[in-house]
Amino acid sequence: MYSAPLQEMRFALDLAGLAEVARLPGVGEATPDLVDAVLAEAGKLAAEVLAPLNQPGDKEGSRLENGIVYTPKGFKEAYRLFTAGGWNSVPFAPEHGGQGLPTLIHIALSEMWNAANMSFALCPLLTFGAVEAINAHGSPEQKALYLPKMISGDWCGTMNLTEPQAGSDLSLIKTRAVREGGHYRITGQKIFITYGDHDFSANIIHLVLARTPDAPAGTRGISLFIVPKLMVNADGTLGAANDLRCVSLEHKLGIKASPTAVMAFGDKGGAVGYLVGQENEGLHYMFTMMNNARLGVGLEGVAIAERAYQQARDFAKSRVQSRDIAGTDERPVTIIHHPDVRRMLLAMRAQGEAMRALVYYAAALLDLAKRHPDSAERAAHQRLVDLLIPVCKAWATDLGVEIASIGIQVHGGMGYIEETGAAQHYRDARIAPIYEGTNGIQANDLIGRKLGRDGGETARRFIATMRELDGVLAGAKLEALAGLAPPLRLGLDALAAATEWMVAALARDLHHAAAGAVEYLRLFGTVTGGWLLARGAVEASTRLAKGEGDPAFLEAKLVSARFYAESALARAPAFLNPITRVGASVMALAEEQF
Amino acid sequence: MYSAPLQEMRFALDLAGLAEVARLPGVGEATPDLVDAVLAEAGKLAAEVLAPLNQPGDKEGSRLENGIVYTPKGFKEAYRLFTAGGWNSVPFAPEHGGQGLPTLIHIALSEMWNAANMSFALCPLLTFGAVEAINAHGSPEQKALYLPKMISGDWCGTMNLTEPQAGSDLSLIKTRAVREGGHYRITGQKIFITYGDHDFSANIIHLVLARTPDAPAGTRGISLFIVPKLMVNADGTLGAANDLRCVSLEHKLGIKASPTAVMAFGDKGGAVGYLVGQENEGLHYMFTMMNNARLGVGLEGVAIAERAYQQARDFAKSRVQSRDIAGTDERPVTIIHHPDVRRMLLAMRAQGEAMRALVYYAAALLDLAKRHPDSAERAAHQRLVDLLIPVCKAWATDLGVEIASIGIQVHGGMGYIEETGAAQHYRDARIAPIYEGTNGIQANDLIGRKLGRDGGETARRFIATMRELDGVLAGAKLEALAGLAPPLRLGLDALAAATEWMVAALARDLHHAAAGAVEYLRLFGTVTGGWLLARGAVEASTRLAKGEGDPAFLEAKLVSARFYAESALARAPAFLNPITRVGASVMALAEEQF
Repeated sequence: MYSAPLQEMRFALDLAGLAEVARLPGVGEATPDLVDAVLAEAGKLAAEVLAPLNQPGDKEGSRLENGIVYTPKGFKEAYRLFTAGGWNSVPFAPEHGGQGLPTLIHIALSEMWNAANMSFALCPLLTFGAVEAINAHGSPEQKALYLPKMISGDWCGTMNLTEPQAGSDLSLIKTRAVREGGHYRITGQKIFITYGDHDFSANIIHLVLARTPDAPAGTRGISLFIVPKLMVNADGTLGAANDLRCVSLEHKLGIKASPTAVMAFGDKGGAVGYLVGQENEGLHYMFTMMNNARLGVGLEGVAIAERAYQQARDFAKSRVQSRDIAGTDERPVTIIHHPDVRRMLLAMRAQGEAMRALVYYAAALLDLAKRHPDSAERAAHQRLVDLLIPVCKAWATDLGVEIASIGIQVHGGMGYIEETGAAQHYRDARIAPIYEGTNGIQANDLIGRKLGRDGGETARRFIATMRELDGVLAGAKLEALAGLAPPLRLGLDALAAATEWMVAALARDLHHAAAGAVEYLRLFGTVTGGWLLARGAVEASTRLAKGEGDPAFLEAKLVSARFYAESALARAPAFLNPITRVGASVMALAEEQF
Repeated sequence: MYSAPLQEMRFALDLAGLAEVARLPGVGEATPDLVDAVLAEAGKLAAEVLAPLNQPGDKEGSRLENGIVYTPKGFKEAYRLFTAGGWNSVPFAPEHGGQGLPTLIHIALSEMWNAANMSFALCPLLTFGAVEAINAHGSPEQKALYLPKMISGDWCGTMNLTEPQAGSDLSLIKTRAVREGGHYRITGQKIFITYGDHDFSANIIHLVLARTPDAPAGTRGISLFIVPKLMVNADGTLGAANDLRCVSLEHKLGIKASPTAVMAFGDKGGAVGYLVGQENEGLHYMFTMMNNARLGVGLEGVAIAERAYQQARDFAKSRVQSRDIAGTDERPVTIIHHPDVRRMLLAMRAQGEAMRALVYYAAALLDLAKRHPDSAERAAHQRLVDLLIPVCKAWATDLGVEIASIGIQVHGGMGYIEETGAAQHYRDARIAPIYEGTNGIQANDLIGRKLGRDGGETARRFIATMRELDGVLAGAKLEALAGLAPPLRLGLDALAAATEWMVAALARDLHHAAAGAVEYLRLFGTVTGGWLLARGAVEASTRLAKGEGDPAFLEAKLVSARFYAESALARAPAFLNPITRVGASVMALAEEQF
């Protein structure tokens, strides 16, 4: 079972800058004591309510019967407890009933929901996106009508973007929106709609991308609409059913408890939709929400890694098999004594810590970008977080899959049996590199938009910031710290060289640049994760020196950082060839040669 | 759908030394024409009969009803066609009805069965192991009684090793065998028994590991027994049911069409079992068959990589999405035009080719080790193949999982939907790093037994053999060849250094050695694969220069080798730290710190 790693999370929050975030205007009272209390309370819900539903929910799955979607047994009640506890409203502005807590805290809480039950956590994730969209771009009337109920969780939200021919390429969207007085009539089919229908809430507020008849072709002709499942009267009461329905649910590899719907809009003449903001600005609006959504998916990688680690660790501590390879005792030992099992557990854990550190760090940057009193600081933090978001999303989700796979391996044959539960993480984790922009798209975003827009300047500054740790490490008396300096330096050198190559390649040959983009992103994540673990090691050694905190926990931080430096960061220089040299080979084959 | 890659396979056969193998005594007439005809005929069965059953078989699964195991619709008839075509008898000695074809041909054919339908292919794989065991260690009477029908496929075979408390560690086996006249009574429970029961054949010959009452503890007290499902009369006719049954089938992540049974022996007093060879030699007998079995599992990695590649490639050629990033045309293109999709396809393909090259190479070594007229040559080939088998098994199956995962990624959201089929490969592939000795066990075998037994001498010689290609490459006028020299040289340097470190570490600190074993094995595979692809590139350029063969195919070989050198072989030096430096970190944490 899952137990929220409160000590780990609190350490990562501190490292991400909780103290600074807590001082920002408008974040309420994010004091250390409050944070600990909130985390502990959420941990109980996650461990006691959500986590026990994870495996039965996977087995049962959501189902569509006579036009109605039923989530697995217990999920509806869990959602009631979740909203009753106020957990749905954590990150939202108090003016519509939110608690106004920083994104950093919201991310830490979301880690628990996702680790406990990724399928469940998708529902609030999607509502969160819909609330953000309406809050950022809706009219005052729309905000007043929809936001309080969506923030409380009485109503849920969805995002209807994908169509069969329009996945990564939303310019191909065909769903139509025809104006009719004060609203529009929406007609079309949407696929892959997460929680497109379900039994959690009295109403579902769909946000739908569609084209008006006179819209320009491509991405500049897409508008965003609010399309409620049940019509909402002006006083907020619910009216008749709108002209939309769930046609079918997908049979997926994982996250089976979450209904992924094919949605039909306008079978009976057109669903009533309300324009959000201006016509033809829909995709632009979507982009403004993308950072949060992508960070949320990157977090899924962190969460599933934690869940898989806990399960593998518990198994390794109980499974007795084979004697200690280097011992004299013939008796078999628990497999956590075997070096390769320890290596696997450390790989899961050290990389998991690095991923958590990065995602939390990015969350803190979002808070600073939004609330810092100094506008130049806000802008600088925004630029940095824009750079890091695709790294969080893609690096953490690729590793999430890899770590879940290691989790199976630790179990041996038992890992392949579904009853054990390890296999579910491997299946669930696999969606995260795909949705919310595939990891290939993230890599293109990293190089094309994020490096491209300022010629690599933000990346250079960030690398310079990371280099500042070198003096601290190299000058440390403690070998556990000093030993981190050389691999971090080599890693930063590689990242700097790759960045300069990429900036030049963007101007010279886009195909070659794009061919190296995914490996560049991985290098970026690998090095940034190593820097953050090294910072954590410095913090741990400081606390140890002061006699603060739990020595066993803090000493383990030094071990994680060292293991990561030896096994992951040490590979950074080897990314250079795969980034800079594969372009010609990648483009060499004719289509028929594949 | 699957289409057997005959051109690729034939190229890999040539590279592995088909011409030399075909000249060995006792392999029949493995002429080029015959080989092509056999491959083509097998390809038809694989593509037309086995492959179409793969997805429905996964969906339906095998099931146990009232004590009887039913395989999915169509499987029984497919097995009938498989045996009627003589495919079950390919590798076996003619004296018992086999065709006596070389292991190299058998491996190529098995690739097709596994790529077409891994669940199906497990049945002949297990029968093969049982036949080998009886052939190598059974009495003349046992051979005469069982082998002809097992080789024809009229009866199938199984291997009953694992028990709940005895997985990787077979010393913990508890199943009992008590002598009763000319036979034994077997009592105990076995788990994870592949095709432990099914409806393919009239009888099933179980090979069962068990302990006699006075057997020494541990691995030296395990005996091997033939335990038929239906008793076999002296004239070969079938008698009464033996005292054994399938208790349940596992719910697995993948290979769902293949029944994985919990078997109970002796519920009614003891199943009749016949001792194979001598008491207490059972584990020793198992080890003698291990090379073939492990090669067979490594081959599953090759096969699933090919299947996943074909599916991803076909999707990439048909799916239209987004415009060419570097083009001026706004119209969307098939995604095979996008550099990152091409990179993914090349990664699947180049690594798949390297894996195939290695597994076929090892298969040829097995033939040479068995049949070479010169006993010193036989011994040398045996030493080399013993070294390479764990590499084939673990490296190819780890990559099989990775490549199946890339296959999903190429599909984007469609890859996560089970109907697409890509997800099945990801689920099926995941067993191969686990069974037949986990990949961690393979790595321990590589360092402990294979390096340890001769102080690394075989490895050193093999590295020297691989270095011989350097002169050919470095002296080539063709840049496509000359460019392969530096990365191969660096790779071989890294492998040589890691080997020397490992040999020293084995004497100095077994824990540290074992902590680096898996990464050492991966380095070994990475470099050997690069060497084989470089050899293939030399061969392709020779044929191109002579105007022999299909130029588009041969030029693609040069591209695969270059891409692999740039993206995989180029990472070889970065394995050194993860091999040599992690030991202290891996052993540092107390159990409670995990």
